[in-house]
Amino acid sequence: MLPFARVTIIGLGLIGSSVARAVQEAMPTVRVTGYDADATVRDAADRLQFCDDVAGSAGAAVIDADLVILCVPVGIMGEVAAEFANELPADAVVSDVGSCKAEIVRALTEALPNATVIPAHPVAGTERSGPEAGFATLFRGRWCIVTPPEGADPVAVERVSEFWRRLGAQVETMAPEHHDRVLAVTSHLPHLIAYTIVGTAGDLEEVTQSEVIKYSAGGFRDFTRIAASDPTMWRDIFLNNREAVLEMLQRFSEDLSHLQRAIRWGDGDALFDLFTRTRAIRRSIVEQGQDDDVQDFGRTHG
Amino acid sequence: MLPFARVTIIGLGLIGSSVARAVQEAMPTVRVTGYDADATVRDAADRLQFCDDVAGSAGAAVIDADLVILCVPVGIMGEVAAEFANELPADAVVSDVGSCKAEIVRALTEALPNATVIPAHPVAGTERSGPEAGFATLFRGRWCIVTPPEGADPVAVERVSEFWRRLGAQVETMAPEHHDRVLAVTSHLPHLIAYTIVGTAGDLEEVTQSEVIKYSAGGFRDFTRIAASDPTMWRDIFLNNREAVLEMLQRFSEDLSHLQRAIRWGDGDALFDLFTRTRAIRRSIVEQGQDDDVQDFGRTHG
Repeated sequence: MLPFARVTIIGLGLIGSSVARAVQEAMPTVRVTGYDADATVRDAADRLQFCDDVAGSAGAAVIDADLVILCVPVGIMGEVAAEFANELPADAVVSDVGSCKAEIVRALTEALPNATVIPAHPVAGTERSGPEAGFATLFRGRWCIVTPPEGADPVAVERVSEFWRRLGAQVETMAPEHHDRVLAVTSHLPHLIAYTIVGTAGDLEEVTQSEVIKYSAGGFRDFTRIAASDPTMWRDIFLNNREAVLEMLQRFSEDLSHLQRAIRWGDGDALFDLFTRTRAIRRSIVEQGQDDDVQDFGRTHG
Repeated sequence: MLPFARVTIIGLGLIGSSVARAVQEAMPTVRVTGYDADATVRDAADRLQFCDDVAGSAGAAVIDADLVILCVPVGIMGEVAAEFANELPADAVVSDVGSCKAEIVRALTEALPNATVIPAHPVAGTERSGPEAGFATLFRGRWCIVTPPEGADPVAVERVSEFWRRLGAQVETMAPEHHDRVLAVTSHLPHLIAYTIVGTAGDLEEVTQSEVIKYSAGGFRDFTRIAASDPTMWRDIFLNNREAVLEMLQRFSEDLSHLQRAIRWGDGDALFDLFTRTRAIRRSIVEQGQDDDVQDFGRTHG
């Protein structure tokens, strides 16, 4: 039995358009309705045909949905939900794909006090943005974390979980606050650091920007991928998961100071120990199917 | 005309074995002699046949070479050079592939006071180590930085440059000290930060290591590639390019504090501005052929 029959996706960027494509592929009888506030994105969705219908407003999009998924930046979740609050069917489940859940649970339950809100976060993405960048297999083999508010209806939680399993994801359930701490370290802190170092490298005087680009194959270019991610999305994530990000950043800074000291005092053993330990984590990520085991990320080398 | 006829490679790991393979492919008439202090690596070299000869000692390896390339960790360059100092032909050119050049120029000219020393650094590599990991196309389209000591023979500099061009690299010449600052930002600092964050993530209490691994697709896994690089090699780089690394680290820490403050005070514009600027650098790296233009590093997604 299909978990939902009429799915509405609000926000048709990388993630929203990938969800639409994945539903078309995995559950072809499900009707997919899409909406995006940006008319050029709606036109692209019409052209690329990853929705059965593209609605002209958020309200019109949700009018007979049994699942509504918000795929918009974290900072405007509540505002967008308020746009369709009056048209939302009483038995519809409302979900989202945002990267920080405590704040989203708060914003959505405030905007939709009578709705069944079951937030979720597929841990998948790429550095590209927009409806052209999406693809149906984005969630395959990746994790999707469902973060129900306290007292949520277990049947609705299971329906949302089954929806994501059908798209190829593995599902885990977690309290919103714990989710936010886990993602602070596995996603938010890495992005913050990547953005920072790319910025630092671009600001030097003794080393020109053209030198940074030319010699980026020494390691720097790995950081530039995630530092090319959508700026609005990431601004909102940092502002809405502030406490957990600042806590992880504090730990990272302490560890960096420790290494700085080891370099200054020539403590080779401290460096060697850390550099050995970190190899094991890479190995586990590959073993557990969360990254491809391809040398140098499979770069072509000519 | 070939720049060299008899090339000896000391150290047959990822880089040394890639140089050997690339010479076999690009200049098949050149005789390649290899040596590695580790007998199991010498056996692998025999088996994989990327050298014409595998010598039993460093001295025997160089005895009729016209180019000797040291492909050993930065910290033992001088010591290894001293091993073959007595057997080195008077007209041989000695080079290397190390990642910090001022210290290597010092160590090699001290160990080989009468030799022609022309250090070089191919800016290429992968996270794998050892003779099995090498491949002939590693240097194609990458830069090789030649860093002659003051007063070096221009003919020898040109021969070393031509050697690297034959292997597919683009060659640039630079003072050793400037090289060290450029690489501190494009390679050494990124590795230090990647090692640190992978270590930080492994040490948390509230978030388990298994959670870090499971949800690494949110960005963290990009860092684990370079944090899986050879520990000995990287320990030596940080100890031998200390001043430049500490200087870049200081700048990075200041920039990170600036972002930390922006997050704490909710300054979304500061975040958005940086996140927009960093996209352009990624674009330039791809445009200039220093990274592949493949979404999500070409990961397979199921």
